Amino acid sequence: MSRARLESFMNQTLSTEHVLLRDDQDGAVYLTLNRPDKFNTLSEAMLEALQRELDAIAADPAARCVVIGAEGRGFCAGHDLREMRAKPDQSYYQSLFRRCSKVMQSVVALPVPVIAKVQGLATAAGCQLVASCDLAIAARSASFAVSGINAGLFCSTPAVALSRNIPPKRAFDMLVTGDFIDAGTALEWGLLSGVAPDSDLDATVAEKVEKILSKSPAAVRYGKAMFHRQRQMTLADAYDFAGDVMAENMLNPDAEEGIDAFLGKRKPVWQRPGH
Amino acid sequence: MSRARLESFMNQTLSTEHVLLRDDQDGAVYLTLNRPDKFNTLSEAMLEALQRELDAIAADPAARCVVIGAEGRGFCAGHDLREMRAKPDQSYYQSLFRRCSKVMQSVVALPVPVIAKVQGLATAAGCQLVASCDLAIAARSASFAVSGINAGLFCSTPAVALSRNIPPKRAFDMLVTGDFIDAGTALEWGLLSGVAPDSDLDATVAEKVEKILSKSPAAVRYGKAMFHRQRQMTLADAYDFAGDVMAENMLNPDAEEGIDAFLGKRKPVWQRPGH
Amino acid sequence: MSRARLESFMNQTLSTEHVLLRDDQDGAVYLTLNRPDKFNTLSEAMLEALQRELDAIAADPAARCVVIGAEGRGFCAGHDLREMRAKPDQSYYQSLFRRCSKVMQSVVALPVPVIAKVQGLATAAGCQLVASCDLAIAARSASFAVSGINAGLFCSTPAVALSRNIPPKRAFDMLVTGDFIDAGTALEWGLLSGVAPDSDLDATVAEKVEKILSKSPAAVRYGKAMFHRQRQMTLADAYDFAGDVMAENMLNPDAEEGIDAFLGKRKPVWQRPGH
Repeated sequence: MSRARLESFMNQTLSTEHVLLRDDQDGAVYLTLNRPDKFNTLSEAMLEALQRELDAIAADPAARCVVIGAEGRGFCAGHDLREMRAKPDQSYYQSLFRRCSKVMQSVVALPVPVIAKVQGLATAAGCQLVASCDLAIAARSASFAVSGINAGLFCSTPAVALSRNIPPKRAFDMLVTGDFIDAGTALEWGLLSGVAPDSDLDATVAEKVEKILSKSPAAVRYGKAMFHRQRQMTLADAYDFAGDVMAENMLNPDAEEGIDAFLGKRKPVWQRPGH
Repeated sequence: MSRARLESFMNQTLSTEHVLLRDDQDGAVYLTLNRPDKFNTLSEAMLEALQRELDAIAADPAARCVVIGAEGRGFCAGHDLREMRAKPDQSYYQSLFRRCSKVMQSVVALPVPVIAKVQGLATAAGCQLVASCDLAIAARSASFAVSGINAGLFCSTPAVALSRNIPPKRAFDMLVTGDFIDAGTALEWGLLSGVAPDSDLDATVAEKVEKILSKSPAAVRYGKAMFHRQRQMTLADAYDFAGDVMAENMLNPDAEEGIDAFLGKRKPVWQRPGH
Repeated sequence: MSRARLESFMNQTLSTEHVLLRDDQDGAVYLTLNRPDKFNTLSEAMLEALQRELDAIAADPAARCVVIGAEGRGFCAGHDLREMRAKPDQSYYQSLFRRCSKVMQSVVALPVPVIAKVQGLATAAGCQLVASCDLAIAARSASFAVSGINAGLFCSTPAVALSRNIPPKRAFDMLVTGDFIDAGTALEWGLLSGVAPDSDLDATVAEKVEKILSKSPAAVRYGKAMFHRQRQMTLADAYDFAGDVMAENMLNPDAEEGIDAFLGKRKPVWQRPGH
């Protein structure tokens, strides 16, 4: 067990409430939102737990892929409104939204791919979490909304992630109406990368994880680190950056092995992660 | 009648030609391009009238939603080519395109949502006006083109709006060929947010307006002001900005009321707009 | 024969290997990747030939449209992996990726539209070349992948072009799995602007070329120069830039002729290119 995983394990054991579960399987890290009776809302405790695990994973060379799923009938209903209403103070809200935004940006910045596994409802910051992941696979019966507008609170931070996934008129329509879209529509619009029959959701996500684990751990990390950063650059800057990343990737033993295996028509053998 | 609306009314009454109609209904402002015999082209008078009304609406706390529609068989055929050809002078053209671009950016910057209601043809700057609105609902028989290329004039300013709505190869194809796409295609590509049977266009738009009017006026304004600005920022800046907007929104009485109503499973009662 | 074409012809004649063919037809320049036995990989010789021809076309006022096609059963399989493995050196790789990125950016910066004509496989930098063109038409049986990940080399520079064509989750999925998508999917996602039955690919591309050649050469050049640049700007800057381009375009004799022809309901007669 790596030091990062050990620390994470100890933190979890010490916490009074297991709002977030972590299960490691050969490089795949399964995080599970675990407040099913509260629709897995992003309470302060949940945000703190997510941030702690994401930080631990970022420091864990054995981690190769993350799945964010949820217990119960729904994925995540966004912020904990009851908790929010209990502390009506601007600096508290600013701090809360910053912590939430940090979690979302930590997903984007994580050195390995993150897959959202979605069943039931994903609303407001829950929908934002789906949008923030690199990939998102949902059960066919899942549905999505940025519904804060119905409670007098426009989903402004969810809009940041949503509008970077789907075309602007569709994003604005969802934001201003709070209407739900189904999983098929979310796939068509680009919020999801895949949809599975409800009974096959776990298997479909496991298959995607398996495929990612079959690739060179080093190459996947090069790619994840590069992908989102280059999107924010001009074309010229993006090419300079991506070219340098790719040149470094070429010098990694896995690229040598991978290309030789390809040319030799054999299966490559990758370096163990973190080596 | 608010001061802004009064001024607008007086300006309109004083103008010799009613190229643009304004009809206010309980916070919904219906603007109607009214030169049907000229395909509602964006003549200097039309651009001036649009700018005046958009400025008036921006200053009108009672305005909550805008619909831009058109009289006659078509929505808008772009610039008035006859007028343009009558003044062949670079500084005139620069000024004309700047005024038109200002109208388009005023739509984007308006503090309330703007819906395009489209029947018939929307071409060149007419198609750009559709692209510039937050939402756009068209009759099924409507069609769209950026057809300046057929008159030796590439639709450069329309390209700005179009390429921010639909994927680049589709935008470039439309721009370089001048070909029409139908409403179904425009919806699929993201230029529209909705399509209605021809006979239901008014009702479908009215339903969307009704839905927007049922939300907190304050929350809708927070969202509109935030949405387009954050799209131009880096992810980190966008989150900082959106988080601050959302914290302010939380302190608005409508958010308190909305969340309490949600938690109490009752219908919220919003503040009157401008209060 | 223009000076640029003459120089290009002489360079080609002098080269020992015709890895790239150029065929000029009334303003349409057909470039053909011609290493079918090597899946038309972008070897150093191929990159050099492409850069030379793109530079020549950029300086050639007679050029009005470019088609990039390929000999044999596939379009392009990306970099020449055998050649790459023979020179395992960081500065070589940096230089190689820079040269390749320069070719891709030269396609984008070319003053005339570039159409990819795709049959068979387009993988890695081959898929990037498709993404870099203004338009792309593929045979229905064509397929697309950014498959470097399978050889331990994440397709970082292809990601730059790909992620500017299709939604981020779809791009990341392709990049991290290396999976193929078919032409229909590529069209739906925005990587292609058209798909044709295999037997009609040439005719479909020829029809698109014919349509572009029927437009004002000057207007097409104004548009191509403006389109990609404005996409990288803020909305306000993009409008300033596009408005100035359009004002210049209006002063071009082709716009006068085109508008007069439109108003007079007759066919316009454009200036000869380069005049």
